[in-house]
Amino acid sequence: MPRFASFDDLRAACLDLPAAHADVAAAVAAREARLTKPPGSLGRLEEAVAWLARWQGRNPPTLDAIEIMVFAGNHGVTAQGVSAYPPEVTAQMVANFARGGAAINQLARAAGAALRVVAMSLEQPTADFTQGPAMSEAEFLEAVAAGYEDVADHPDLIVLGEMGIGNTTAAAALAGALYGGGARFAGTGTGVDEAGLARKRAAIEQALERHADVRGDPLRAAAALGGRELAALLGACLAARHRRIPVLLDGIVSTAAVAPLLALRADALDHAMAGHLSAEAGHKLLLQELKMKPLLDLGMRLGEGSGAAVAVLVLRAGLACHLGMATFEEAKVSDKPA
Amino acid sequence: MPRFASFDDLRAACLDLPAAHADVAAAVAAREARLTKPPGSLGRLEEAVAWLARWQGRNPPTLDAIEIMVFAGNHGVTAQGVSAYPPEVTAQMVANFARGGAAINQLARAAGAALRVVAMSLEQPTADFTQGPAMSEAEFLEAVAAGYEDVADHPDLIVLGEMGIGNTTAAAALAGALYGGGARFAGTGTGVDEAGLARKRAAIEQALERHADVRGDPLRAAAALGGRELAALLGACLAARHRRIPVLLDGIVSTAAVAPLLALRADALDHAMAGHLSAEAGHKLLLQELKMKPLLDLGMRLGEGSGAAVAVLVLRAGLACHLGMATFEEAKVSDKPA
Repeated sequence: MPRFASFDDLRAACLDLPAAHADVAAAVAAREARLTKPPGSLGRLEEAVAWLARWQGRNPPTLDAIEIMVFAGNHGVTAQGVSAYPPEVTAQMVANFARGGAAINQLARAAGAALRVVAMSLEQPTADFTQGPAMSEAEFLEAVAAGYEDVADHPDLIVLGEMGIGNTTAAAALAGALYGGGARFAGTGTGVDEAGLARKRAAIEQALERHADVRGDPLRAAAALGGRELAALLGACLAARHRRIPVLLDGIVSTAAVAPLLALRADALDHAMAGHLSAEAGHKLLLQELKMKPLLDLGMRLGEGSGAAVAVLVLRAGLACHLGMATFEEAKVSDKPA
Repeated sequence: MPRFASFDDLRAACLDLPAAHADVAAAVAAREARLTKPPGSLGRLEEAVAWLARWQGRNPPTLDAIEIMVFAGNHGVTAQGVSAYPPEVTAQMVANFARGGAAINQLARAAGAALRVVAMSLEQPTADFTQGPAMSEAEFLEAVAAGYEDVADHPDLIVLGEMGIGNTTAAAALAGALYGGGARFAGTGTGVDEAGLARKRAAIEQALERHADVRGDPLRAAAALGGRELAALLGACLAARHRRIPVLLDGIVSTAAVAPLLALRADALDHAMAGHLSAEAGHKLLLQELKMKPLLDLGMRLGEGSGAAVAVLVLRAGLACHLGMATFEEAKVSDKPA
C-alpha cells in the first residue's frame, strides 16, 4: 500500500501536525539571558538557537548530524524555451554532485553536513504543464512519498535543496496558483535572456489559465504545476515536521515546493526557516507571502541548497556562542542594572 | 621618534595609499567563469573571493591566517549617563576575553581566526568630550600608532572590533562631525533606556557644538570626539591598507573609527568590507554615507568584532567554492549556449 493513497489521504497527513516543545524554548531563553552580552544582542543567532531547541526538544540543541537533501527532476515545460541551459544539464549536474565538483559539495563540507542527492526519474520529465497537468495524482503522490521516506530518522537539521533545468518556471507557476498575480514570481533563473524570460512568463500565464480549476486546491496545484523534485521536497518537509526536525529552506524552488503545506495549515512551516533570500526575482515576493524572513541575503541564485548551506554556518555560530559563553556570574561582569 | 609626529604627518600617511592588484582580480574572474554554475550565481561569495585576491595579490587567495583585533577603551563621556552598563564593564569584559568566555571567543574559534585583544589605557578614560576634546593631539597620535603597530606582518585578513562602555556615543558624535545632522547616528547601544538615549543625544549635540571647529578636519574630529580604541582602529586599518591586507569591519564603532580615512581620500577603504549591518540604529545611516553594503544583516549589536567574525564564515564558504568546484570541462557539464 502506498504511503499516500490519494490527494485526500495526503491532505489529512498535512493537517495532522505536532507542535514544538515550548518548555525547552523557555529553558534556552533563561540561559541566554545570563550570558555575558546585552540581552538580545546576538539577534538572529539567538533566535535560531531557540528555534533549534524548540523543535529538537533538546536544551542545548545539537548540530552534529545535518543532512542536506538535494532532489533533482526534469520538466516538460523546457520545451517552451524557458531556460538558459539544455535539460540534459540536470543529469550532468547530478553526476557532478556525485563526483564532488559542484558548489553544494564544497558548501556541505564547509557546513559540516552530509549531502544526499536524490534523482527523481530524470529520464522521465514531467509533462509540459502548458499542455496538461505536469503529473497525474499517482505520479505526484509517489514523488511526495519518496521525499517523505528519504528523510533520515533523527537528524538535527535538514537542509532542502534542488536541481532541475526548468524548475524556476514550475516554482513560479505554483506560487502564482497559490498566491495569485499571474507570472509575477518569474525571474531569469539560471540566466535566461529577455526573450527567454518573455517565453517563461507566457508559459506560466498559459499554465495558470489552463489549470485555473486547481487554484483553490494546494495539492492539486502542486501536481499540475510543480515537478517531481518539488513534490519530493514537500514530502521531506512534511516528514521533518511529523518528527519535529527543523528545516532550512533554500531558494524559490524549495520555498514554492513547501508553500502548499502552509496553504493547508497556517502553522505548517513553523519548523522551517528561510536560509537565504535568493537573487531570483520571485523569491522575495514569495517569502513575503509566506511571512518568512530569510537569514541571509548574499545575492546567490544557484539552487542546490547552496544558500541554506551557508546559513548553516550562521546557526553553528549561534550555537557556539550559546554553548561556550560565560555567564555574568562566572565571568564576574557587572550585569546591566535593572 | 613617534610613528606619527603630528596631525599633518598622519594626514600625509593617510593620503599615500597603494592600489589593489588589478591583474590578479582578472585571473580570479576568469577561473570563476569556468566553474559549474551560472555566471555570477554565487553572488557576494564570488565578489568576496575576487576582493580578497585583489588585495592579497594572490590567485587563489588564502584564508589561513586571520586576525581578529579587538581594541578596548574607556570614555569620559560615560559621566553623562549615556550607557546602560557601568564603565568598569570594559575591563571586566577584557578579562572575559582573556578567559575565553565572551561571544567573540566562540566566534573566533568558529571562524578559524586568531583573537588579539588590545586594552588601550583602560585606567585612563578619555576626557568627557562634552567639556573638552576627548584626546590631545599627542594622545590621539599615540593611540593611532599603537593600532598601526599592532597589525601583524602579513595576515590574510584582519577583522576589526572593539569594546568600550560609552563608545557608541563617541562613534555617533564622530559620524555626526563627519557627515552632519547632529545626533542622528545615536542608538540605544548596549540597551540604554529612553531617558538614557535622551542624555546620549544631548551629549552628542553638546559635543558637536563645542567642537564645531574640527568638523572640516577628519583627524582633529577623531581626536576631539573619538576614543583611544577608535584611534587604534583607524591606525590598524591604515596599516592594513599600506600592506594591502583586506579588512572586515564590524559595527558602528569600527565603521565610524575608520570613516575619517575615507573623508581624507575617497578610495581609502577599498580594502575594507562591512562585515554586517548592526541593529544599532546609526549603523545603517553611516554605511549609507560610506556607500558600503554589508555582507550580513542578522540583527546583531554586540560589538567585539562579533558580526564581522560571522562574516568570515561567508568568505570561507566563497573560497571553498572557488577552490573546490569543477569546471564545465572537467565535469562535462554543458555550458550555457553563448
